[in-house]
Amino acid sequence: MKSTIVTAKPGKKIRLSKIDPAATGGIKKDAALARAAEVREKISVLQEALYAEHQRSVLVVLQAMDTGGKDGSVKNLCTGVNPAGLKITSFKPPSLEERDHDFLWRAHNAAPGKGMIGIWNRSHYEEVLVVRVHKLVPKKIWKERYEQINRFEKHLSQTGTTLVKVMLHISKDEQKERLQARLDDPNKRWKFNPGDLKEREFWDEYQKVYEDAINRCNTDWAPWHVVPANHKWSRDLAIVDLVYRVLKQMNPVYPKLSFDPKTVVIDG
Amino acid sequence: MKSTIVTAKPGKKIRLSKIDPAATGGIKKDAALARAAEVREKISVLQEALYAEHQRSVLVVLQAMDTGGKDGSVKNLCTGVNPAGLKITSFKPPSLEERDHDFLWRAHNAAPGKGMIGIWNRSHYEEVLVVRVHKLVPKKIWKERYEQINRFEKHLSQTGTTLVKVMLHISKDEQKERLQARLDDPNKRWKFNPGDLKEREFWDEYQKVYEDAINRCNTDWAPWHVVPANHKWSRDLAIVDLVYRVLKQMNPVYPKLSFDPKTVVIDG
Repeated sequence: MKSTIVTAKPGKKIRLSKIDPAATGGIKKDAALARAAEVREKISVLQEALYAEHQRSVLVVLQAMDTGGKDGSVKNLCTGVNPAGLKITSFKPPSLEERDHDFLWRAHNAAPGKGMIGIWNRSHYEEVLVVRVHKLVPKKIWKERYEQINRFEKHLSQTGTTLVKVMLHISKDEQKERLQARLDDPNKRWKFNPGDLKEREFWDEYQKVYEDAINRCNTDWAPWHVVPANHKWSRDLAIVDLVYRVLKQMNPVYPKLSFDPKTVVIDG
Repeated sequence: MKSTIVTAKPGKKIRLSKIDPAATGGIKKDAALARAAEVREKISVLQEALYAEHQRSVLVVLQAMDTGGKDGSVKNLCTGVNPAGLKITSFKPPSLEERDHDFLWRAHNAAPGKGMIGIWNRSHYEEVLVVRVHKLVPKKIWKERYEQINRFEKHLSQTGTTLVKVMLHISKDEQKERLQARLDDPNKRWKFNPGDLKEREFWDEYQKVYEDAINRCNTDWAPWHVVPANHKWSRDLAIVDLVYRVLKQMNPVYPKLSFDPKTVVIDG
């Protein structure tokens, strides 16, 4: 099986329109589900070691258009792993207190501690995405943010956090189908926000600012990965595979014991 | 199947020594695992509605002796539910900042928001458990805490949070086996803390302060449930069943829509 993920390379620009959101890498659904289950078991073993080692962290950043599959991807990543080692953060519109600080303040606060895997549903990138599309701050401000984000991520990286930045890439048609599905299912209707239709009108602008974010914040220490996400099962497999490869590369080890287990006697 | 859970009733004292930690309610392991899987699916459906309703919360408080199964119970409760609707908190020894506040400050801060299920691995009860056993504060102080805890829980309850307080009840022999198992398994050894043996010497004192906490903080608005926990599969079934019954009783409903789904048209 060929990975569907397009990982941005520093100095080489990504064009979202050149990446097929329906790509599956030639694998069928059943095979993908079975394989994802296997990969999850391997992640679970490595996560246990990461948690025990208690030295480093992983931070998975999930960004996508509305209905792009952020919630589903969080659920996918959490399946089968130890919840004690997860720190999940959903970035909502900033609170009054958060707006009283610089835009990276709340992001830093949400960073995973030692031994933890952090999963961000949206992130500090909203500050160069929705903020740009709707002109919420002047160009002078948002232009500087890319470099500020790169510095922030360099700091996280240097202090022990491996960043895995994922853009879930769906097509405009797929979004239409998913919005319609929300309307049609009585148990999903509450998720439908008429405002999403307004956002949908800005589809092209969003694609452009996503490309900018990916290309300007695509660093050696925190590369971006574009995951074709029209097919949920393909997307899920791609993401667990990506996280598995990251964990394997980190190679976490159980800590040395401060005692000899053979000499320990447990009294009645 | 008969529930193994002993739910404390206000005015009637619980004696832990009268509750069999090995009770299974007459169900066999395979049947219990199958049934727990079914109950989890029902929890998942109700959790979705609780999250959508966005009005009330559930707070599951887990307390137990060392190796009593708190971590396993968190994992059990998280299996199959939407992680976006969970807020998990592990209470560690308080930080300097936390110690600069009253003992309920950090507990309140960790309370689940609307629509969420909070799961606490340890809790504010440590302040009348380990704190009493090791005489970390004078009697004058800890004596007042039961009433303070009751008031705090009454407030949470009145403002929309359903409390589910669970004491995982294991035997001293079972603890011995579990500590030994940690020592014997190279991948579990890191969890073994020689200090746990010191705590084990205080077994009887701990049982006594647990009884006190259960009996003094056993209110109409926040009852305690003692779950026999020697058998993990029986414990897991008992807990999901308890949480399921609580959610069913709450009967969360999907919010009314502010629009008519039939009139919505999604443009190309």
